[in-house]
Amino acid sequence: MNYTIGIDFGTNSVRAIIVRLKDGKSVGTGIYNYPSGKSGILVHPANPHCARQNPADYHEGLEKSVTAAIAQAEQSSGSEKFTPDSIIGIGVDTTGSSPIPVDKNNRPLAFDESWKDNLAAQCWLWKDHTSAAEAAEITELAKQLRPHYLERCGNVYSSEWLWAKILHCLRTDPGVFEAAWSWVELADYIPAILAGIHDPLQIKRGVCAAGHKAMYAEDWGGLPDKEFLAMLDPRLANLRERLYEKAWDVNTPAGLLSGQWANKLGIPAGIPVAMGALDVHYGAIGSGVKPVMLVKSMGTSSCDCGVIDSDTKLDTIPGISGIVLGSILPGCQGIEAGQSAVGDIFKWWVESVCEGDSATYARLEKEASALNPGESGLLALDWNNGNRTILGDPHLTGMIIGLSLFSTRAEIYRALIEATAFGSRVILERLKEYGIPVSHIVCCGGLAEKNSLLMQIYADISNCVMYVSRSDQSCALGAALVASVVAGEAKG
Amino acid sequence: MNYTIGIDFGTNSVRAIIVRLKDGKSVGTGIYNYPSGKSGILVHPANPHCARQNPADYHEGLEKSVTAAIAQAEQSSGSEKFTPDSIIGIGVDTTGSSPIPVDKNNRPLAFDESWKDNLAAQCWLWKDHTSAAEAAEITELAKQLRPHYLERCGNVYSSEWLWAKILHCLRTDPGVFEAAWSWVELADYIPAILAGIHDPLQIKRGVCAAGHKAMYAEDWGGLPDKEFLAMLDPRLANLRERLYEKAWDVNTPAGLLSGQWANKLGIPAGIPVAMGALDVHYGAIGSGVKPVMLVKSMGTSSCDCGVIDSDTKLDTIPGISGIVLGSILPGCQGIEAGQSAVGDIFKWWVESVCEGDSATYARLEKEASALNPGESGLLALDWNNGNRTILGDPHLTGMIIGLSLFSTRAEIYRALIEATAFGSRVILERLKEYGIPVSHIVCCGGLAEKNSLLMQIYADISNCVMYVSRSDQSCALGAALVASVVAGEAKG
Repeated sequence: MNYTIGIDFGTNSVRAIIVRLKDGKSVGTGIYNYPSGKSGILVHPANPHCARQNPADYHEGLEKSVTAAIAQAEQSSGSEKFTPDSIIGIGVDTTGSSPIPVDKNNRPLAFDESWKDNLAAQCWLWKDHTSAAEAAEITELAKQLRPHYLERCGNVYSSEWLWAKILHCLRTDPGVFEAAWSWVELADYIPAILAGIHDPLQIKRGVCAAGHKAMYAEDWGGLPDKEFLAMLDPRLANLRERLYEKAWDVNTPAGLLSGQWANKLGIPAGIPVAMGALDVHYGAIGSGVKPVMLVKSMGTSSCDCGVIDSDTKLDTIPGISGIVLGSILPGCQGIEAGQSAVGDIFKWWVESVCEGDSATYARLEKEASALNPGESGLLALDWNNGNRTILGDPHLTGMIIGLSLFSTRAEIYRALIEATAFGSRVILERLKEYGIPVSHIVCCGGLAEKNSLLMQIYADISNCVMYVSRSDQSCALGAALVASVVAGEAKG
Repeated sequence: MNYTIGIDFGTNSVRAIIVRLKDGKSVGTGIYNYPSGKSGILVHPANPHCARQNPADYHEGLEKSVTAAIAQAEQSSGSEKFTPDSIIGIGVDTTGSSPIPVDKNNRPLAFDESWKDNLAAQCWLWKDHTSAAEAAEITELAKQLRPHYLERCGNVYSSEWLWAKILHCLRTDPGVFEAAWSWVELADYIPAILAGIHDPLQIKRGVCAAGHKAMYAEDWGGLPDKEFLAMLDPRLANLRERLYEKAWDVNTPAGLLSGQWANKLGIPAGIPVAMGALDVHYGAIGSGVKPVMLVKSMGTSSCDCGVIDSDTKLDTIPGISGIVLGSILPGCQGIEAGQSAVGDIFKWWVESVCEGDSATYARLEKEASALNPGESGLLALDWNNGNRTILGDPHLTGMIIGLSLFSTRAEIYRALIEATAFGSRVILERLKEYGIPVSHIVCCGGLAEKNSLLMQIYADISNCVMYVSRSDQSCALGAALVASVVAGEAKG
């Protein structure tokens, strides 16, 4: 009986599962909440757009979540006894674009005493929006000189993405930029450390983050060319050769598990480590993505992923986050779109404004469920964290109209759910408009499983059945499934 | 040593004070919270626009508040011993337009067993907005046929006013309309019962409510003419002669205190009862109104009152609530404008949405005080209860824009204060634009006294010093002062 491990590095925690390959069932789960900052996020007291993470949390979380998952699997496997030596592969997904500045030995600058308290030396978490000006600058320059760079990312380069973040670092904290020998996406960093790779140039970078976040495409020669980068800043052009020439799809493993990490985790050394990918892309795989199903990964934000065969010629789809060959399934075009905040909006309302807890969520869901559509007269806009698809503007803000002296917190809660559902509908309509005939929708992630009111409202507003993924850890499951493929146990 | 009593019938409670005429000092206060409904307001489970009051609460509140004020005065007057027989007059102010359907003996229908549970048979509280369609119909008809009726009420007849309310009753509950022999404003009803007047036609109606709420003006023959009313509904025309021919300013007393009520209150029979008036108009007198000072009475809603001499020819001021000769000071034109909700908006936010208490108010005021203008990026509109001046539309609703995932309840609280301050500024600008050169502003009412942050924000946004009235019961003080005038003790 063989098993693989899938590890999902989320926004607030890391979750590892042990998957039995015979039936895809998870036999053990380990969860580790990042200890640093506010729910794992390093914030800036004066700049709400800043969101960083302490790389040390990833190391600690990697070890703790996997060993906890193994311990649970050892206890609970019942008749078919699980043993750690039956693990034959390991797969990793993470948030992104979440780049980490590293030194020449692939060691995060944040591990260095002189940089450890500098926010710019940490991991720049996906939802960091400090780089809006640089993103606009990149968009503007590409529009004039390299329009093809933009064609596959909806015509707008985002402040959440690699080049904007590095350029912002260069502009606002040149010391960190100079000290960083290279930058590594978290999705590439974890597999690299598992495989014991200490040279940034030896890291096998995944095409998923490269294509969706770094304007990488084989047909234009990989990353953006030096001339283009030099027009943003000559130092950026110099950095290019310390990043990577080629990025890989998930058919290629990232490496083999090092003895050091095999010991730490108590599993066999030398097993393959799958290529790292963005959480939602592995979530799509874990949810059984195929043409032309849309997988909605719904958590703090949402990511909508779909695949379409490589022969279909797609026009630029304005406002979507990207179309990248091989980013989800090898041989297919991976499509990504999404909303900058979904669960985060409800969390803001229930926990921050209402100062509520889980009982408050339950009460508001119950009260909101009793309302008819439109009954409250409220209308909200889900732009509290900007808008990713289809407007690509991180500076947009949310709105509630129709307030009376009788508006209740449950009515506002429902209006916020409806707002995110309409945000989701706009994405669906944009995809259909540009020739992607979405046939059905599968939802995964915490919100999809926990919030049946939300699912019903989404179904009503989308006029579409919302399927919920069988696994409660779809991203980790996808990572484990890919690990089984590179371990030779399953076919891609 | 002589004293008068001032009694202020507010939205949630009635407050009586005993005023020493020598120095205008209050020597005793009695407060009675209406026991019926929600904080004294009878609401409709399905219609948030409905706001009624139980007339029995007024009778009970009249007796309890006055006897409590007398008891306090007797205990605390110190060296100059107060005795109830030194009371020489009594004055009353109330909310309005708050009309009560009464039978031929001036007895509220609500006191009748067959009507007591019918919301339409209660007092129709000022903030009842059920009559919006009828108000629009009256405005439209007057625009075509009697434009002069509208000229003095800002060109829009409000759903808060007498004719709209009666017409709505006629349309939606004709049984109550037919059973009502007459309708009496609360401001006229209380003085009438104190004076023992049991015939609606014998009640001396105040020009304040008549002019501001019932389109009464001597120069066009009193109330709207029968022909006009008949075009709204013939039954309304028939009602006209069971209302009143003439309305009086505060130089005329409403009557003399009946033996029955003198006994109940323990004060001398036969003392004059001043003409009743709307709370904010007596609040203006209590705050020392004179040309061209604006008195802002700030509570659940706000009323801005000013006086200008009768010789000044004023154009129609679009959107203001009214210009009525003698409504505040005899011989002056009284001007009224206002906001449909002020304190009610903060109450909605802090008590209803945030589920907070007085400690929450204190915390939010402290946190909001620490913010710089514009710092939060939030902008709110204070239309949660519609807009009275200058738009005259009870169906408008409130709005908050600029919301992020970091918006706090204190930031929203501040934005709501700013919204009401801008609402106040719009009124000020409209008055100035139409030739009323407001020289300074005096604020009275609970909000003005308690909320220094609010006063500062109003001052900043109005670019004007905000004076706060010396009395914490300006309306009751104004009523007591007018009582002293009609008692012959002071000059008007």
